[in-house]
Amino acid sequence: MRAVTIRDKGISVEEHPDPTPGAGEVLVRVRAAGLNGADMMQRRGLYPAPPGSPQDIPGLELAGEVQALGEGATRFALGDRVMAITGGGGQAELAVVHERQLMPVPALLDWPQAGGLPEVFTTAHDAIFTQAGLRPGERLLVQGGAGGVGTAAIQLARAAGAQVTATVRNESLREDVRALGAQALDPEGFAEHGPFDVVLELVGAPNLADNLAALATGGRIVVIGVSAGAKSEINLLALMGKRARIHGSTLRARPLEEKALTARLLEREVLPLFQAGAVKVPVAQTFPLERAADAYECFAAGGKLGKIVLTV
Amino acid sequence: MRAVTIRDKGISVEEHPDPTPGAGEVLVRVRAAGLNGADMMQRRGLYPAPPGSPQDIPGLELAGEVQALGEGATRFALGDRVMAITGGGGQAELAVVHERQLMPVPALLDWPQAGGLPEVFTTAHDAIFTQAGLRPGERLLVQGGAGGVGTAAIQLARAAGAQVTATVRNESLREDVRALGAQALDPEGFAEHGPFDVVLELVGAPNLADNLAALATGGRIVVIGVSAGAKSEINLLALMGKRARIHGSTLRARPLEEKALTARLLEREVLPLFQAGAVKVPVAQTFPLERAADAYECFAAGGKLGKIVLTV
Repeated sequence: MRAVTIRDKGISVEEHPDPTPGAGEVLVRVRAAGLNGADMMQRRGLYPAPPGSPQDIPGLELAGEVQALGEGATRFALGDRVMAITGGGGQAELAVVHERQLMPVPALLDWPQAGGLPEVFTTAHDAIFTQAGLRPGERLLVQGGAGGVGTAAIQLARAAGAQVTATVRNESLREDVRALGAQALDPEGFAEHGPFDVVLELVGAPNLADNLAALATGGRIVVIGVSAGAKSEINLLALMGKRARIHGSTLRARPLEEKALTARLLEREVLPLFQAGAVKVPVAQTFPLERAADAYECFAAGGKLGKIVLTV
Repeated sequence: MRAVTIRDKGISVEEHPDPTPGAGEVLVRVRAAGLNGADMMQRRGLYPAPPGSPQDIPGLELAGEVQALGEGATRFALGDRVMAITGGGGQAELAVVHERQLMPVPALLDWPQAGGLPEVFTTAHDAIFTQAGLRPGERLLVQGGAGGVGTAAIQLARAAGAQVTATVRNESLREDVRALGAQALDPEGFAEHGPFDVVLELVGAPNLADNLAALATGGRIVVIGVSAGAKSEINLLALMGKRARIHGSTLRARPLEEKALTARLLEREVLPLFQAGAVKVPVAQTFPLERAADAYECFAAGGKLGKIVLTV
């Protein structure tokens, strides 16, 4: 099979042996696979794939058709449209995924949308609901609202009855973010627009002090992106005074059983929203697999609202 | 009535008007009232009492007998032995407390034990169970294990089937802490004894980096004391890698309904342990109300295991 390959921090497309599904696993004929910030970090050698995942084939998510079933895999039939997050190896013609990580693709979604859905919607749902416990009527601040996780979080929070404010550095994207249902702000001076019950931090540590200052009593901060920096001073007395908590999280390193739980939650709480057309996967641009290097360039350049997706 | 009084950062005992119970409130004839770190801070002007509590009479907890009932107060009868946390005003001959904050005093407890129970056991229970979600078999680290909250946390965690390690700076107190069921360590180098699932931080920000380093995946840090300092650097990437969370908390500023909830939880989950003799309130020393200034000196000097309690 052909697969995106990381070699000496460069991106190429090379021939690899076809993977074979083990017990409980499914061989997926990949149709689309989204790019994510973690791919950029992995390419730079900063974020190795977890044990058991291909080390040199990136790709944290995929959508495609069931091509073969491993022993005892019973959740799906040959030809079913499926999608999943995976520890790596999604950006290839074929990928092996445990059946309990797979989700059915809602009928309304085309391949690029399905291939760009799992990672950002799972991440956003886990962060704002499972961890921060966002409630109807609460005020959510999304720090970095124009990215994949940001646009997913805005839509999910709105669908759950929360009020959403999002910071968007790129002025030209703010109108698109507003169209998703958020108040879109320049990051400068965001704290004046608080208080916020939940802050989803996708930018980094430089925001921490102002996040805490803008937090409501009992507020929660969830940090899942630190591209702008990881270290910051924290005032624990301020944290105590707000009776607040700060979560740090990643999806990728979690064991199968925890990832499977997030997939079941998405099937129950998020996929019906896609069936109903209430939320969408913004796809900024697609590239065929063979042009993966161009796709990585495009992702790294930024400035787009929505996902960059490889099609196979 | 006579009451401990804060005046120009000094402690005296002065005459005050008797308080009268409003609707749903109970007038308690105080028999014992424990001292807490918050009293020391309030004396220094750093921790004002919340609105609605006496500003010049300290005391966050009390035990005594029901002397009069406000309109509609039905949970207790005249003469009942009761105890409670309160926003302030506990160190006096009389105090008014809402009946939903009051708990019955277990039969095995004498007045000094009852007067020193509510604050530290409510704080410890709320921190390690309600917030950190400590589970049977998990490993708890108590940073500052010889204080009132520390000794309460050690006993509650042991009774719930957790393994407990405690740092104790004062070497002469370590044997007493071991007798409560914890491994007692010098604070220096504590991180080598991890990993820990939950850290109860009673000392301050200087421990934060090592707490995070010693935390297990999915671990929780609860900060409720920062006498050694409130500010520290935090590495959010490390927090993400551990999929960890940091809570800050105080009890005092919470609204009545939340304090009442903590009282109901204590009645259900903690007071039966006192009835069974499975946990105890270590009382280091008692002072009559008129010697409050000496009691404050004794508390500030430290070096004792257990509560300093005023008796009335």
